[in-house]
Amino acid sequence: MSRSTEGLKAAGEWHILKGLLPTFENKSVLDLGCGYGWHCRYAIEQGASAVIGIDISAKMLKQARALTNSDAITYLQMPIEDIDFAKGQFDMVISSLAFHYIEAFDAVCEKIFDVLTKGGSFVFSVEHPIFTSRAAQDWHYGEGGERLHWAVDDYHSEGLRQTTFLGEDVVKYHRTVASYLNTLIGVGFTIKAVQESYPSEDMLEDMKDELRRPMFLQIAVEK
Amino acid sequence: MSRSTEGLKAAGEWHILKGLLPTFENKSVLDLGCGYGWHCRYAIEQGASAVIGIDISAKMLKQARALTNSDAITYLQMPIEDIDFAKGQFDMVISSLAFHYIEAFDAVCEKIFDVLTKGGSFVFSVEHPIFTSRAAQDWHYGEGGERLHWAVDDYHSEGLRQTTFLGEDVVKYHRTVASYLNTLIGVGFTIKAVQESYPSEDMLEDMKDELRRPMFLQIAVEK
Repeated sequence: MSRSTEGLKAAGEWHILKGLLPTFENKSVLDLGCGYGWHCRYAIEQGASAVIGIDISAKMLKQARALTNSDAITYLQMPIEDIDFAKGQFDMVISSLAFHYIEAFDAVCEKIFDVLTKGGSFVFSVEHPIFTSRAAQDWHYGEGGERLHWAVDDYHSEGLRQTTFLGEDVVKYHRTVASYLNTLIGVGFTIKAVQESYPSEDMLEDMKDELRRPMFLQIAVEK
Repeated sequence: MSRSTEGLKAAGEWHILKGLLPTFENKSVLDLGCGYGWHCRYAIEQGASAVIGIDISAKMLKQARALTNSDAITYLQMPIEDIDFAKGQFDMVISSLAFHYIEAFDAVCEKIFDVLTKGGSFVFSVEHPIFTSRAAQDWHYGEGGERLHWAVDDYHSEGLRQTTFLGEDVVKYHRTVASYLNTLIGVGFTIKAVQESYPSEDMLEDMKDELRRPMFLQIAVEK
């Protein structure tokens, strides 16, 4: 996972999945793209019995382990696409801002469906398709540098987006809202809730432009 | 219903709900905002046993009746919000490009849920929230008049949008994608499919800008 993700995760606690999450009590949880392990630790604090966190970045997992003081959390370094667990091993799968870096969302969804117990929950966030559609992924600015509106283009052209974040090249994959939902439904999930991010009230002063377009899409489904 | 709707309906056959519709065979169908009755007649052609078409426009219903040659279709003039049918009276409720003119989508959804039989289908299209978010509802143009990108703003500010279409004032109500979906789920529906409109291949030559942003949102749910 790139450093851009670190930046987003650090900047983006307000996007967090809390509002969509079922109770963690006594649940076995899988966190895909766990980064520094924030959600892993949160799950344990909320009563999860065991958590496995997956990330491709050895550097982020090293930091995650340093921040973690619980035997109930296991961190594994691998691409999300390579997960290979027992059928029905988990009660809950969570993922924060990882899937827009992954090309094969459908294949990953099938794996997630398999490793979830019947009635299990899958809750995740991605950068919103309104956000990922244009390679530029930016506001349209006026002559004085003011944000005039959010620019959308190429919405139906799914696939690779080569963009930059804090000066680094980042590769993302754009999918439409319909694609995310229909892939989940096609795999067999039931849609339970959809959120499009907006800042919490205490963040609103600094982030009022976040009311002008949704940066993140959050989806909760059930097997 | 305003003349702007006529214009959209005339221009928009390519958006049609066909792709999402279950079979009409022997179904009792309610069409909300039926306009000229295109979908009512289509339902009968596809084997529906009876169709009731609702529209607020006497003028459009007069034209609908003139175009219709079937005793199985009944047209009623009333606002969609005022429907009052028996519980479980219909096997299918359809609506094409009407609900973005309605403020109380949640109340209408509850009524639709009640009048549908168990297992019944509700399939509808609205102008896409990407399309309705800004009052201007337009592309951002370059100096030569070229369409540079689609402009999104005020996405999270749901409610009234006063706009114009072909020189006439039009009142619409903007809702987010999440609002549409969560309202349906909250009422008790199961999401079956979501589509974001794009032109069919035979229309692509004239409408290739429709690949740049979705104009319509189409949702199919089941009771």
